[in-house]
Amino acid sequence: MPKGSFEGLLVPALTPFAADLSPDVGRFVGFCRWLLNEGADGLAVFGTTSEANSIPLRQREELLAALVEKGIPAGRLMPGVGACALEDAVRLAGLAVEAGCGGVLALPPFYYKNVTDDGLFAYFAELIERVGDRGLKIYLYHIPPQSMVPLGIGLVGRLIEAYPDTVVGLKDSGGEWSYTETLLREFPGFDVFPGSELFLLPGLRAGTRGCISATANINAAAIRKLVDTWRSEDADAQQARLTEIRQTVQAFPVIPAVKAIVAHFHDAPEWRTVKPPLTPLGEGDTRELLGNLARLDFSMAPPEAGP
Amino acid sequence: MPKGSFEGLLVPALTPFAADLSPDVGRFVGFCRWLLNEGADGLAVFGTTSEANSIPLRQREELLAALVEKGIPAGRLMPGVGACALEDAVRLAGLAVEAGCGGVLALPPFYYKNVTDDGLFAYFAELIERVGDRGLKIYLYHIPPQSMVPLGIGLVGRLIEAYPDTVVGLKDSGGEWSYTETLLREFPGFDVFPGSELFLLPGLRAGTRGCISATANINAAAIRKLVDTWRSEDADAQQARLTEIRQTVQAFPVIPAVKAIVAHFHDAPEWRTVKPPLTPLGEGDTRELLGNLARLDFSMAPPEAGP
Repeated sequence: MPKGSFEGLLVPALTPFAADLSPDVGRFVGFCRWLLNEGADGLAVFGTTSEANSIPLRQREELLAALVEKGIPAGRLMPGVGACALEDAVRLAGLAVEAGCGGVLALPPFYYKNVTDDGLFAYFAELIERVGDRGLKIYLYHIPPQSMVPLGIGLVGRLIEAYPDTVVGLKDSGGEWSYTETLLREFPGFDVFPGSELFLLPGLRAGTRGCISATANINAAAIRKLVDTWRSEDADAQQARLTEIRQTVQAFPVIPAVKAIVAHFHDAPEWRTVKPPLTPLGEGDTRELLGNLARLDFSMAPPEAGP
Repeated sequence: MPKGSFEGLLVPALTPFAADLSPDVGRFVGFCRWLLNEGADGLAVFGTTSEANSIPLRQREELLAALVEKGIPAGRLMPGVGACALEDAVRLAGLAVEAGCGGVLALPPFYYKNVTDDGLFAYFAELIERVGDRGLKIYLYHIPPQSMVPLGIGLVGRLIEAYPDTVVGLKDSGGEWSYTETLLREFPGFDVFPGSELFLLPGLRAGTRGCISATANINAAAIRKLVDTWRSEDADAQQARLTEIRQTVQAFPVIPAVKAIVAHFHDAPEWRTVKPPLTPLGEGDTRELLGNLARLDFSMAPPEAGP
């Protein structure tokens, strides 16, 4: 019995930037709407793929406000509240609760490494108690390849035990199936979302709730189809196709690659912009990537009409 | 011929926190003044030891303003401007230049790992050009154990070449002497500060400018003495004593340990507070640490009189 409201495909929506590297708010809202039309069950905005930690707090606040104001259903939003400073995470989570978001995705503080479970527990406990609202639903964000701060099984268990109505799930971008399996076995009813559609079908069969994946920015409809039909006979064939596309994309740096693909299919070169320290996909790599996708007969639906 | 104005001992000043985890501004200013009286040539506030990345941007701005307002000479300040979002670093560096700080200590953006030199170069270039002030003097902050984003020799060389009057030095907290030596050999006139007094004497003999060290918060006078007398006959004996004390402290988690020592000698238990994800040194560890220091006849001068 899940305690969270999310299920299926969540897209960690890309953030489009203007030439001065500020977020393009209008384009962002339009893209989020397009993702929902493509079949996204929810939008995990302000995650790793969104380059959220490269965006100042105030701009993240403005983007969230714009989404809600423009009619994106808040209940389908799972904004990231990642920060190194507790107060910043509290601020973002508080705004998310106020806006009615279905949950928030919470990174551990990620500057210090080799920190203790006691220290991480204290951080999440302060976050929860400072927000102080039963509407807060936290999805922990386990992404050791970037954060370098893994969330150990023991820590996750302590948090679930201390805050059973708040700590309701976890995005697992660790890429280690044994970790995922342990979560499912140890914490029945806890909502686990693998961080890649590579694990979608095996995950659903094992009890995960869906996935939250960077490449869902370009392949949402097909991923959603497998979410809806994973018990059907062609499920393995669908998974194979998703895997093929994912692997084609992740042969390149994923965020710049996904942005280059959107730029191409939505005919908007502005999408190629990433913030430092990321760099846009080079021209040669872009040609190669798009060629590889063409050979797979891959394409994306056109963007929302209108500005 | 150094292009920066710092030389000798810089202390990455601890940040004291109130019970609600906000910075104790008055105590911070008093401690910074005490460090200068103890012999610190400069104060590298808002670094790793300062828990700066655990402090919201606005609070860091307030602390810097308070230091200058209360008469700490701005020219002796090297505030850290570490941030994942470029605009935050630009904001802090701009304020530092405006206040007349002698320089700033610049971390690379540290959320994404395995980023390219091109991406890091673009970040620092944007930082420098957005601040757009010839008064900006940048000390790069190489601290791979925490940032997990090393600054390669090639990148440092590109930055010095592109911005020779701005990129004037580097704090080397990598702990690898071969890296330090390479910097000294490849970039004559570039100001290298090892991140620990363990490397003070060998560094000064090899051409570094001094050191910037966490344990200078508790041992500034003795470190400064070696800076002033490193060509004297007892230099090796002085280094051995510094090393003994440093190793005694770093047998424990350094930031909580240094805070526990200040709390003890300045008779102010509030100093023990650290922000999550760090945890205060436990009682048993504190007793052991203080006992070990007592056996070395270590003590600290009393704090500044007055509030």
